[in-house]
Amino acid sequence: MMDISRRTLLTGTAAAAATVALDPLAGISAAHAATPAAGKQAPGFYRAKLGDYEITQFADGARTFPMPDPFVKNVPKAEALAAAEAAYMPKGMVTVPFNPILINTGSKLVLIDAGYGPGIAPQVGLLPVHMAAAGVDPNSVDIVVLSHLHPDHINGVKTADGKLAFPNAEHMVPAPDWAFWMSEENAGKAADNAMMKGYFANVRKILGDMASKVTKYEWGKEVASGITALDTSGHTPGHTSFAVASGSAKMLVQSDVTNIPELFLRHPDWHVMFDVDPAKAQQTRHKFYDMAAADKTLIAGFHFSFPSQGYVEKDGASYRLVPIRWNPVL
Amino acid sequence: MMDISRRTLLTGTAAAAATVALDPLAGISAAHAATPAAGKQAPGFYRAKLGDYEITQFADGARTFPMPDPFVKNVPKAEALAAAEAAYMPKGMVTVPFNPILINTGSKLVLIDAGYGPGIAPQVGLLPVHMAAAGVDPNSVDIVVLSHLHPDHINGVKTADGKLAFPNAEHMVPAPDWAFWMSEENAGKAADNAMMKGYFANVRKILGDMASKVTKYEWGKEVASGITALDTSGHTPGHTSFAVASGSAKMLVQSDVTNIPELFLRHPDWHVMFDVDPAKAQQTRHKFYDMAAADKTLIAGFHFSFPSQGYVEKDGASYRLVPIRWNPVL
Repeated sequence: MMDISRRTLLTGTAAAAATVALDPLAGISAAHAATPAAGKQAPGFYRAKLGDYEITQFADGARTFPMPDPFVKNVPKAEALAAAEAAYMPKGMVTVPFNPILINTGSKLVLIDAGYGPGIAPQVGLLPVHMAAAGVDPNSVDIVVLSHLHPDHINGVKTADGKLAFPNAEHMVPAPDWAFWMSEENAGKAADNAMMKGYFANVRKILGDMASKVTKYEWGKEVASGITALDTSGHTPGHTSFAVASGSAKMLVQSDVTNIPELFLRHPDWHVMFDVDPAKAQQTRHKFYDMAAADKTLIAGFHFSFPSQGYVEKDGASYRLVPIRWNPVL
Repeated sequence: MMDISRRTLLTGTAAAAATVALDPLAGISAAHAATPAAGKQAPGFYRAKLGDYEITQFADGARTFPMPDPFVKNVPKAEALAAAEAAYMPKGMVTVPFNPILINTGSKLVLIDAGYGPGIAPQVGLLPVHMAAAGVDPNSVDIVVLSHLHPDHINGVKTADGKLAFPNAEHMVPAPDWAFWMSEENAGKAADNAMMKGYFANVRKILGDMASKVTKYEWGKEVASGITALDTSGHTPGHTSFAVASGSAKMLVQSDVTNIPELFLRHPDWHVMFDVDPAKAQQTRHKFYDMAAADKTLIAGFHFSFPSQGYVEKDGASYRLVPIRWNPVL
């Protein structure tokens, strides 16, 4: 307002001049305080139609942390760091987002993966907040499908007080992952590997009391109408992607066929530290993207930057992600 | 719930069996109706920090329409269509988004460009809706800076009833664009060109009553603290980009140095139908992106897909946009 008043005075309109004559403080009293910064991000959800289905992509959050050594097991750290920096990540750091997807088939509300849940870090576990912003009641979720049993995918099935976050939902787990992670023999073998030891303990902590309640699903079958479980094992023994089809519309929910595309889609032969069977994960990656690229199939990626969907193109021996364009109205 | 009940019955837990024994309709009454589709997109705003400044990027909307002939003036239509299709646009169509930006400098709330305003199409003119969702009061906007005087940038300064949409704001226009579009001589010369004729009429309709109120700004000077107007003419005679700096943080608000990057960043020598001086616009484009690519400067683009920010890289004689990663928390 002060700028306007000054300008108005300079251009000398009668009304402004009259005001000033009546009240010498008019210019000052009319000045409003500087607007404080909002300091708050927009809610992390994004909607799209897929045939008759409605997709809601959620951001559970993103973590930026010093790149572990090794983050990529089969290249020198400097090479991995250079790739992160080339993707405009802060020097020495890596950013990993976590983005579950909700599919409304018209008869079922199906959540694929549940995010990090409470208590990990303030930057993650935001799924409940963003669901609320999107007007989705956790009680209305019919099915929670877990793509594999890593913490960032499963921990969100429980609240901070250990209750079910989606109390009315059927919980579905890939049969081979359940067998692998629940095996005491496998847990024993992992005793010397801190990361794996933590994963085995976490599966027990989060899902240990649900053994009689989970549904174990098989590859090649539907987990819900139009949502077919696909064998994309390697990352974990039961790692699963999903083909979602409604009418002629189709998309792939890749889960963790890659971790962040900036590193592992650009460099599909790189092995992320989290892979249980890195060679098989690499093979899966090529098969999956060769198919998706040839068919130009839309892909949702749990570790793609929100809104987490795009098309994958071949680029020599590598691949490139082309993110979708944000559609402001459905 | 019906799935759970059926499954629970099959696995035969005592509690479920007891419930069914007491009430044979329990399985049915517990079934909730299928959740209806939300049918509504998330609000189109995105926040980021730039030094001490807070940036809010807004979606005013996006239009998908059959590609006009010519949309690109200096290549065959088939070539332009192929580029659009290669960017996963619907066959025969082109999608153009419109995304104004708001900068809170700590002392001023500065809106650069105002969107399409009311009455054009339901897919655009959404800035007021998204501002409300972001908690931004139009009355609190201190300065509206127009990058150039095309309808998608200026029409939003007025409401449907012709009032100022940002009634307390100083309105700033690039001096050369004001001179060009307000010239009756120029308007007369454009009488045979329907598009240009429409533009001249529109400038008069929207800004005609504001001649004594607008501030005409010059290149090389600040329009507000830390926001410097840059000569990027060609698209229009007064077309302006902005360098925004707070401390050591910097970004470029490019306005329309390109229209959609899928066509005109990938093909910087292509001439979009809207350019007043296409050859100069082409020259500007190379200078602007060569500089931004060398400096790895963050760029906000009015016609980049929401959230409308990214880095531009050289790719041979062409350029490539690397969109920012969505940051779920500030």
